[in-house]
Amino acid sequence: MKVVMTILSFVVMMLFSAEHIHTKSVESKSKTDKAASKQNSEWAIALHGGTGVISRDIPEETREQYYKALEEALEKGQKILAEGGTALDAVELVVRYLEDNPLFNAGRGSVFTSEGIHELDAAIMDGSTLAAGALTGVTTVRYPVSLARKIMENSRHIFFSGSGAERFADEMNVERVENEWFSTERRYDQWQRALGNSSSNLDRSVFEWMEMLRYGTVGAAALDRDGNLAAATSTGGMTNKMFGRVGDVPIIGAGTYANDLVAISATGWGEQIMRNVSAHTIAAYMEFTESSLDESIDFLLAERLDPGDAGFVAVDRYGNVSLKMNTVGMFRAGANEAGFHHVAIW
Amino acid sequence: MKVVMTILSFVVMMLFSAEHIHTKSVESKSKTDKAASKQNSEWAIALHGGTGVISRDIPEETREQYYKALEEALEKGQKILAEGGTALDAVELVVRYLEDNPLFNAGRGSVFTSEGIHELDAAIMDGSTLAAGALTGVTTVRYPVSLARKIMENSRHIFFSGSGAERFADEMNVERVENEWFSTERRYDQWQRALGNSSSNLDRSVFEWMEMLRYGTVGAAALDRDGNLAAATSTGGMTNKMFGRVGDVPIIGAGTYANDLVAISATGWGEQIMRNVSAHTIAAYMEFTESSLDESIDFLLAERLDPGDAGFVAVDRYGNVSLKMNTVGMFRAGANEAGFHHVAIW
Repeated sequence: MKVVMTILSFVVMMLFSAEHIHTKSVESKSKTDKAASKQNSEWAIALHGGTGVISRDIPEETREQYYKALEEALEKGQKILAEGGTALDAVELVVRYLEDNPLFNAGRGSVFTSEGIHELDAAIMDGSTLAAGALTGVTTVRYPVSLARKIMENSRHIFFSGSGAERFADEMNVERVENEWFSTERRYDQWQRALGNSSSNLDRSVFEWMEMLRYGTVGAAALDRDGNLAAATSTGGMTNKMFGRVGDVPIIGAGTYANDLVAISATGWGEQIMRNVSAHTIAAYMEFTESSLDESIDFLLAERLDPGDAGFVAVDRYGNVSLKMNTVGMFRAGANEAGFHHVAIW
Repeated sequence: MKVVMTILSFVVMMLFSAEHIHTKSVESKSKTDKAASKQNSEWAIALHGGTGVISRDIPEETREQYYKALEEALEKGQKILAEGGTALDAVELVVRYLEDNPLFNAGRGSVFTSEGIHELDAAIMDGSTLAAGALTGVTTVRYPVSLARKIMENSRHIFFSGSGAERFADEMNVERVENEWFSTERRYDQWQRALGNSSSNLDRSVFEWMEMLRYGTVGAAALDRDGNLAAATSTGGMTNKMFGRVGDVPIIGAGTYANDLVAISATGWGEQIMRNVSAHTIAAYMEFTESSLDESIDFLLAERLDPGDAGFVAVDRYGNVSLKMNTVGMFRAGANEAGFHHVAIW
């Protein structure tokens, strides 16, 4: 009986249900094979400029400024990678561009703390070596992402806070500015309004959509032609945040993470991103369940985070680009050598 | 044809190969069931007091002091849990005991920074809610772990640095001390020797084994009778460390992590623990590959970290206790309701 059934079963399997019978294991094997054989692109880049309930009432002119800035940032990253530059250089340069642009809450254009100053956080990570550099609470460094890179490359430590980070900056050749240099009129008005100060010049509707971006952050992830991945993130923090609060951005594994499989930069509610160790959850899910990059981010967004919490930009070793959020909008852009090109807000 | 084959296939499946056809899902279910049915213990606790190349030449008297301290710390945690107290209370109290004990590099007995002062870091995490509190660089808080808990329970943020953390302490009812309160003669001599100062009174052999513990940390993980997990870690940092360096201890997912499956506290080389997002790697491997707690820590120690890097103490939701390191020694202890009881150095 058993032999007959075995033969019969075998015939049936061959004829009809082979793909059902081993669905699960074949599926997981084929995923790996598919992924391994599916080098979609030799290089790839993804970037963001913050997430939140971005109102569609943004004035048309402002909206165009954002699209233009995202496009320019993308072009800068693309150019480096297309010419054979490193993923580290690409993410650093893209983030520097976004830090310099007052439209985004990082570097110039950072929000005001409850003390009325700017405290900046940043991190960078080299996926090929797991080297990383991070800082929190710097007040005089023009490009925090570049200081993070100096920490990564020139110190035996990964993470410096406040005046420790400033002191390290003193030893390094990084551009310094007065704290007011980061101030913009619009952010000042936003802060005044947040304090309930009626002297704010900010139009109410403009204030409202800016407030929705109070967790604003900028970041980038890249794959270069040598197969190396890197990620970087930078932020001016939360409007009116408490003194000395450290968010997810400089936390390796929360807001920023890269290894030899994937590179990720996050934006959103920092505390939610931290407690869920979000960027590392994406990387670990992808590795341990052999899921795709999109599936891994979907898992985090749907199973771990709540709607409205966060957005992620990421690239994997195969050149796939993922730009996903469970918020209404995220300033984002991505491209790869295979022709993917995307710039969007909602 | 298709209908016949479908029916035939169905019959064969029923008769013979049902367990093969869904091997993967049955297997994964059985693993979960096995684990779920294997509630080893109603409560469990694990703790550590640092790791490193702990020389066996520790004077006999000192060795006895360490065993006694570990045993006392363990008893304190056990008592709370046996009487139905919470995992959070257990880890906080155990860490407070270790912070107060000058044998360990946390609270009183902390090492000196390059500036000759003490900067303390700590974190605590509630696995049932993923709530967390953390701080870096406090200088006047007697029990940093208790400030971490106040941050977790009384602030909208998770992580405060330096004077931001001190300012939050000002608003909370936590015990404050002068920074010199953390100083001990032995640590001072250790620092003087580290600076190459010949006036150090420290015997060379004693200095050497103390130096091996320069990454010393204390921590605990617990499961309570209600099935809640919690973890906490506290440290005085590295001897002669650079000003403002943030290590792995307050980084949620690196040195400290808890969810509804497992709670972990790390000790070792902070930068290695951070770049590998170590505590979260254990939790993610355990969850996504359905491995045991021991297997998950072994994976991290063998596949991700290098020999000599780190040690971990952890408990899982089933009451299993794991105390593992890839170093020569770790001051450690663990117990559960089922009768497991272990105190060891090497």
